[in-house]
Amino acid sequence: MPVRTIEWVDGTIRIIDQTRLPERLVFLDIGDIETLSEAIRSLRVRGAPAIGIAGAMGAALAAVSYEGEDRQGLISAVREAVSYLRKTRPTAVNLFWALDRMEARLDALASQEAGRIREALRDEALTILEEDRKVCRDMGRNGAELLPDRATVLTHCNAGGLATSGYGTALGVIYAAKEAGKDIRVFADETRPLLQGSRLTAWELMASGVEVTVICDSAAGHILRRGGIDAVLVGADRIASNGDAANKIGTYSLAVVAERHGIPFYVVAPVSTIDFSTVSGDEIPIEERAGEEVVGGFGMRTGPEGVRVANPAFDVTPSRLITAIVTEKGVHEAPYGKSLGNLK
Amino acid sequence: MPVRTIEWVDGTIRIIDQTRLPERLVFLDIGDIETLSEAIRSLRVRGAPAIGIAGAMGAALAAVSYEGEDRQGLISAVREAVSYLRKTRPTAVNLFWALDRMEARLDALASQEAGRIREALRDEALTILEEDRKVCRDMGRNGAELLPDRATVLTHCNAGGLATSGYGTALGVIYAAKEAGKDIRVFADETRPLLQGSRLTAWELMASGVEVTVICDSAAGHILRRGGIDAVLVGADRIASNGDAANKIGTYSLAVVAERHGIPFYVVAPVSTIDFSTVSGDEIPIEERAGEEVVGGFGMRTGPEGVRVANPAFDVTPSRLITAIVTEKGVHEAPYGKSLGNLK
Repeated sequence: MPVRTIEWVDGTIRIIDQTRLPERLVFLDIGDIETLSEAIRSLRVRGAPAIGIAGAMGAALAAVSYEGEDRQGLISAVREAVSYLRKTRPTAVNLFWALDRMEARLDALASQEAGRIREALRDEALTILEEDRKVCRDMGRNGAELLPDRATVLTHCNAGGLATSGYGTALGVIYAAKEAGKDIRVFADETRPLLQGSRLTAWELMASGVEVTVICDSAAGHILRRGGIDAVLVGADRIASNGDAANKIGTYSLAVVAERHGIPFYVVAPVSTIDFSTVSGDEIPIEERAGEEVVGGFGMRTGPEGVRVANPAFDVTPSRLITAIVTEKGVHEAPYGKSLGNLK
Repeated sequence: MPVRTIEWVDGTIRIIDQTRLPERLVFLDIGDIETLSEAIRSLRVRGAPAIGIAGAMGAALAAVSYEGEDRQGLISAVREAVSYLRKTRPTAVNLFWALDRMEARLDALASQEAGRIREALRDEALTILEEDRKVCRDMGRNGAELLPDRATVLTHCNAGGLATSGYGTALGVIYAAKEAGKDIRVFADETRPLLQGSRLTAWELMASGVEVTVICDSAAGHILRRGGIDAVLVGADRIASNGDAANKIGTYSLAVVAERHGIPFYVVAPVSTIDFSTVSGDEIPIEERAGEEVVGGFGMRTGPEGVRVANPAFDVTPSRLITAIVTEKGVHEAPYGKSLGNLK
């Protein structure tokens, strides 16, 4: 991808405002937790790994913004920021994973001077960012081996550079396959209601020279049925320890139809997306977002005034529909309790 | 429904401009074939039965607009109009059924005077309209028996009053069940790209006092999986003689997921939607519409400039996924070759 999704610049968090794409490439420099929380809630920065990085940087931001040398005050300020950030979005586990990690680091630093704590938390957030870069490359390389030399894949939402530090999970596999000399074409579900597929996935694939065709989410079944799709590749927001995967609403139907037509269905996500504390997908909280995203999302009303709307942002694909889960550690197949358990 | 979708008023065709709903209820009085063709192509009037009525009225309009008593001239003008209308939309067979019927009537009138031909064609179009009113009521009554006293149904696109003379096919079943005292709630897929579900189905169900909840198409799988849906009810644009049914894009995925969860999947359509000349759904032409409907439909660009788009307007649901087909003649089950064959 030609640009970086999220960076740490001079004590602020620089993100691409993803709500403005594809019309405008706008960067935001975020210097306080309230602004960061709003950016996460309103999907200016989104995608499970990117939210994790944003959360970690948020904790670092709270530390470096704290003025003075009162260690207890600084620690309290960081904890407060972490607690605030935990409430932004409920489904993607990477946020909690990153915040837990920052708090663990904070605990380990509790006896240090304020300046040292600030520095170490900033370093930890940058380490999480750097790790994501490597993890995405490794996932991409692992997943690319699953694709034939000429492949057409279907994807949903944006599991790309924009959802991570800059390379992607599911789209990272596509980039890696392309770098390995494979000829990859992509069908991208537009992904209602917020159109991450047509706005973001299409944008970054075009910018990277990958042929992409946008379709309505509802056309995916027809496209899978008529033949010519070699694999479905998606990301995940949280994977339970039995392999059930929560991902953008619409993923479940794709998996059901892919299975019917014998098309491999791959979930690509870092180990940090696996929530070993959840036994199955039934335990994963599903974010319900405002109905206005569905019936008033693009500056015009597309439903009658006052109509009821249900707007679940995620669904759960049971692991029996998942051909393999690709992480930075390898390609994991059923039984997932065992294959994922080894990653703990 | 509180208003009539299509009427014949003083030698013109009055339709609701469905592209303006739900924001505005605008009627158009159409007095020439070019305007009618544009209205059909751009979905100002849409829905297989309503398009059939519009086509029939178009043939009548060509007849009544022809000035003078030159019988051959009048016959030529009607044939030209029919030929022009045949090219508006390819999938819904009711259009061809209605135009064939108008031409057959014209053939039978070939030796009559011009004035008599005009009158008879207008009467034939009005008969088709009146028949649709009765057919919708009969379908509704037949289908209503399939629903329990308290039922939550999921529907796709608009198979309602707006898709017919004013009562509906799939929604006609809901209206009839309500009239029979049943308590019916509806989940309506918004139906991308043109949002007939959130714009039209939600509007007419609310206007008729039926509780309706709009969802993104991609949320239907999650809703079907989590339980509480008693049936999926959809219309059809063309049914092959083996029972395969073409309907709005997205219907196929719904049928696949409904089957997985043991939820009955009913197709509701008049006998005029059955194309006995097609052996299977593979022979049904699928309309491909402009990509701009997908990436430029909300008054703003929702995809990058120049992105490829595939926009098939329909898909085919194989008959093995259809629990029953409801027509004005009854409830038909597999084997459909036999049960539909009896309707020929």
